[in-house]
Parts: sequence; structure tokens; C-alpha cells
Amino acid sequence: MAAPPIKAGRVHRFWLIKTKSPETCSISGEMYVVARMRPPKNVKAPAIVRAMPAALVDRISITRQVSQTVHAEETCDSDFRKHIKSSARCGPPIMLLVKLGGSVLTDKGRLRSPRRTAIRRLARELAAARAPLLVVHGAGSYGHILARKHRLNEGGATRAKRGAAARVQADVKALDGLVVDALIAAGLAAVPIPPSAVLSLDDGRVSSIDLTPFLEFSSMSFTPVTFGDVVRDLRRGFSICSGDLLMLELARAFRPERALFVADVDGLFTADPKTHKSARLLEAVKPSDLPQVKFRAASRTDVTGSIEGKVRRMFEIADHVDECWIVNGNVKNRVRDALRGRHVVGTRVSRGP
Amino acid sequence: MAAPPIKAGRVHRFWLIKTKSPETCSISGEMYVVARMRPPKNVKAPAIVRAMPAALVDRISITRQVSQTVHAEETCDSDFRKHIKSSARCGPPIMLLVKLGGSVLTDKGRLRSPRRTAIRRLARELAAARAPLLVVHGAGSYGHILARKHRLNEGGATRAKRGAAARVQADVKALDGLVVDALIAAGLAAVPIPPSAVLSLDDGRVSSIDLTPFLEFSSMSFTPVTFGDVVRDLRRGFSICSGDLLMLELARAFRPERALFVADVDGLFTADPKTHKSARLLEAVKPSDLPQVKFRAASRTDVTGSIEGKVRRMFEIADHVDECWIVNGNVKNRVRDALRGRHVVGTRVSRGP
Repeated sequence: MAAPPIKAGRVHRFWLIKTKSPETCSISGEMYVVARMRPPKNVKAPAIVRAMPAALVDRISITRQVSQTVHAEETCDSDFRKHIKSSARCGPPIMLLVKLGGSVLTDKGRLRSPRRTAIRRLARELAAARAPLLVVHGAGSYGHILARKHRLNEGGATRAKRGAAARVQADVKALDGLVVDALIAAGLAAVPIPPSAVLSLDDGRVSSIDLTPFLEFSSMSFTPVTFGDVVRDLRRGFSICSGDLLMLELARAFRPERALFVADVDGLFTADPKTHKSARLLEAVKPSDLPQVKFRAASRTDVTGSIEGKVRRMFEIADHVDECWIVNGNVKNRVRDALRGRHVVGTRVSRGP
Repeated sequence: MAAPPIKAGRVHRFWLIKTKSPETCSISGEMYVVARMRPPKNVKAPAIVRAMPAALVDRISITRQVSQTVHAEETCDSDFRKHIKSSARCGPPIMLLVKLGGSVLTDKGRLRSPRRTAIRRLARELAAARAPLLVVHGAGSYGHILARKHRLNEGGATRAKRGAAARVQADVKALDGLVVDALIAAGLAAVPIPPSAVLSLDDGRVSSIDLTPFLEFSSMSFTPVTFGDVVRDLRRGFSICSGDLLMLELARAFRPERALFVADVDGLFTADPKTHKSARLLEAVKPSDLPQVKFRAASRTDVTGSIEGKVRRMFEIADHVDECWIVNGNVKNRVRDALRGRHVVGTRVSRGP
């Protein structure tokens, strides 16, 4: 599945992460990181993430746009191709995007209670995929319990609220430390990228995100790890950024082959399988299937929204990836097999017609 | 010590952190964060860090420059002043910049050995300062030992190097977790901002740093905490960013009243006080005093340079702050007193004539 070569007459879409203009927050050096986006969905090819010298970026004249359609006539000379291929900082494209649900990593009912065995096993399964990946994880009982108690999603400016926000930030970073340690032990060079440092919201929606660290670390074959966190919010002061929101931003930016949601159940059921014996697993779900699903009310401890809201976000994510799945992380090797593209028990989420 | 009011005819220097231009990495929302820099050194006034609506930023026409001298005629209308004063996101200016040395926080000779009692006491002393502060800390034995063993400051692209880089990143974040926990327990809303996410180097020098998280969190009365870390390097792949380098960047950006280096000795001596009984404490030091100091060779475990290099960097830092001190963090209340501006045993570092 090699990406189509850059050819005269063909339109390629480039996406510039760093710019040379002096007013940008991230003032770049001489090397510019450029992502060549995937062609439209029916053309099979992964995203290409590349670094190239500034001179070449100038030549294809995308120094001042975040995203621009570039006609290959401008780019198709041998120098350009050589640099794209030979740059020392070229890494393989990001193929897999995985969200480890907080309910798999922690006991969601008890404050700060990690499920260490599950964390270690899942880390080994991710490493066994042997493909470049981005990892997102939920906060589980390291985040939701205190966040709900102090209503951190509403923001605030009191001393008590600030203290609670700082406490939850420190807690989710502690859980992230466990996940990163397990990934490193499994052989991945995992690098945490906390949303609080690179992202800000505007009334709960993403206002800005700096994707450079994700792109640069993964282009060097590190495995970026990010997670649900308390982040800055332009209107509320601070608010909560869920792992699902990060999945959407990363899917949109990197267009991986496969997005995987690792849950504590087999997939999406027609009703909550924990309380309804007659609940049936949906092997595939598209927006028009939602009316047949009986969603329970939002969990008392989950501050990042209802299951229905999460599924609706998955539909958006499915739009940017080849395949989007929900699988059970409590069943051994199911995540590994799903990452390898094998057929597993789970729910395939598609944007659908 | 109120800042001088914005008056017609007077020249003020503004520094824009976010811009409205679409190509910036950190695409901003409707609120822009602006720092009014301190007037020249002989005028006593703290830096002002402010947020204001986009419309006002447009009016003072600094949307496209990182730094620009603005004539107050353009800005002096009642609307502008009102917004500066009434913005809900206005916080007090950053007054204090503190570097907690790795040798105080850890036992530098033994891998990952925190000095928990010292960490807790220093956290209480920082909280007792009761002034807005930025905290930087060293990596101590959580960073230097493995970083030296694997020569991480030279970068590299092998699997073993990547693994070591990820291990050290995870380790320094574990130490940071201890520092942040202690600060939160002492009553500060401490928020970690890892350099690996916001900074990149170019052959060891700072290539880009996103100061927005520091500015925005501190404008909401959080206490940003950053630390020596393994970071991206445009030429080497990755490299090491020392706490001292961060001190320089933050001093230059925020121009705090006081910068404090917390060491495990009383200050700068004429020779290493641990090995030379006759070593004499220098109460003040400027560049011309250096020849009388007998520096020992760089420590075997310190990857971020010699004492002499650190002192030379302090001279640069002293240029951006009112007072720059080295004090002993192992003596109870010395840090607290130094932060409060009391006269304590220590070395005052000045740029000097």
C-alpha cells in the first residue's frame, strides 16, 4: 500500500505544521515538517508524514497556509522527490490510532485504582501490532470522580476549583505514567504529550491544538501518548478535554488506517449488556442504526458525556479513517488481532450512507 | 509597585503570544493574551500579563508581530483601559522565577532517589512566598545518570537510543509528579508543562517554545511547573533541555522581579566548598569576578554542563530580572526568605558593568 508518487498533473494536498513566518508561536528552524494528506477515501493509500528542508517548502509555496491544494507541476522535480525520500527525519506514516478506555485501565468506581495487569497486557498487545501508532487513553477513576465532584467541566476561577483542577491534572498524569511505563517495558518508545500543554478549548470545543509534537515524535518512531485531561478553556478558564475529542482531532489530522476504541464490553449493544441479558451485539453500526439502540442514562461518574454522545463522535472519526472499531480490551489478544486487521468480535463503526 | 498607567505619549512595549493569522500553530479563539513588558530596568514596575478581546488587539495593531513598540496614542481610550482592568482572565503578573536544583530534590548519585522531605519543605516555602511564581526544576538522578550513560544529549536514531530517551522522559516526569504533588499539598495549584511538548531545540539551542500555556495558566493563578527534559532537536533528533535553559527563556519572556537558583550549597564559592576548606562564599558575582573562582571539572553525572557554564547562563538571566540569587535549599526557610526579599546568605548574580 505505497502512497501514489508525486506526479505532474496530479493534485496533492499538503499540510504544513510549522511555518517560517516570524509571528507563529512555534518559530521553526531550517527543517519543516510537512504531512502529505491522503487522497480521497476511495483511493487506498496511507498518509505520509515527512520532513523536508525549508528551501523545498518555499518552492512548493505552502509557507503561509495551514492547508493548501498543491498542483504537482510546482513540485515535480527530481530534487524534491529525492529530499522527500532521503530526509533523515522521515518516519513511517501513522497507521493506527488507539483509544484505551478509562474503564479498562482503571476500576471506574474507586478513586485512582489502576488495573495494572490489564495495562501491562494491553501495552504488550499494542507493541505486538508492530506498526506506527498514536495512543490516547481515558482518565477512568483518576479523572472522572473528582472532576464530577468539583464540576470541573464548567470551569471556574475560585481557589477551590483551581486546586481541584490541579489535583485532577496531577492524577491523570499519574495514570499516564503507568501506561507509558508499561508501553516502554513492552518495547515502545512512548512519549507522553499532555493536552494541557498543547491544546485549548473554547467553550468545550477545540480552539487550538499544536500537532507538531505528535508529528515530530512519531516521525522519529516514538509513540506519542495523550489522554483525557483538564485543559485551558478561553471562556470557562479551564474545562475537560475527553480522550474521544482527542481521537477526533488526531484522526482528522493524521488520517490513520485504523481507529480502535478499546472498551470493557464487546462493542455496541442494543442495550447495556451489563444490565440487559437480551442485549445483542451490533457487528456494524451507522448513524441510521441508532434508533434501535436503547442507551442508558449517562453514568454518574462519567463527566465526558453519555454513551450516545461517544458513539456520535465515533461516526465523525470514522469519516477520517479507513476502519473504525470498538473492541473488548478485557479479552486477551483481541486488541492485538484487531490492530493486525484480523476479524475479531466487535462493532465496526462507519459513517454510512 | 503598580505598573504605570497606559498614557498617551508614552511608549509601551506589548508582546503578543497568540496571533489571529491562520497559519500560526496555535490558532487562537476570540480572546488574545497579551503581555505588557516591563519598562526599562531603571523604572520600577512589574510585567503585566493580560488577556483582552480580539477587537482591542486589532485596534492597537499588534496582530502580526511577536514584539512591537506601541505608541500609547493608539491605545489610550477608555474602552481599552476598561477591558484591561475588567477582563475575567486577568491575573497578577509573574513576580518570581525559581529553579529547584536537581541536587536538592534528589540524591544525585543514586538512580531515581528523591529527597522527599526536602521536596515537601521547599514546596511549603514556595507557597509561603504568596506571590505569583513560575517553578523550574532539575532532573537530578532521575535524568542525568541514564542521560549520560546513553549520551542522550547527542541525540540519535537507533532503537536503543529512543528507548533510553523515552525512559528518561518518563523518569523526569515521575520526579515532576512528586514536586507537583508537594506543591498542591502546600496549597498551590501547580500545573506541569513538560518541555518535550512545548519546546524544540536546534543543535542544542532553543528553536521554538510555546509560552502560551505558561502565560495562560499563570494568568488564571495556577503555578506552572517545568523541568529539565529530553526534547526534540531539529538536527540531532532529540537532545537535552536543561532547567537553566528554561530559566533563561522564561526570564526573557516574563521579566520577573526575582530569579532564584536553589542549590545544595550556600552560593558560589571561590572553589568547590565540598572539597576545599578554604573556599570563600562570594556574596555577589559579576562576569569580571569569574577569574578568581576555581571551578572544578564538570561533574561526571551532570549532562547539562559545568558549574562555570551554569554561572555564565545566570549572568544572561540576571539581565532580564531585577535580582538574581543563588541560595541554599538545604537550609530551612532560606528559600522562603529570599523569595520575600529578605537579606539571606547567598550569592547575588548581576550582569555587572
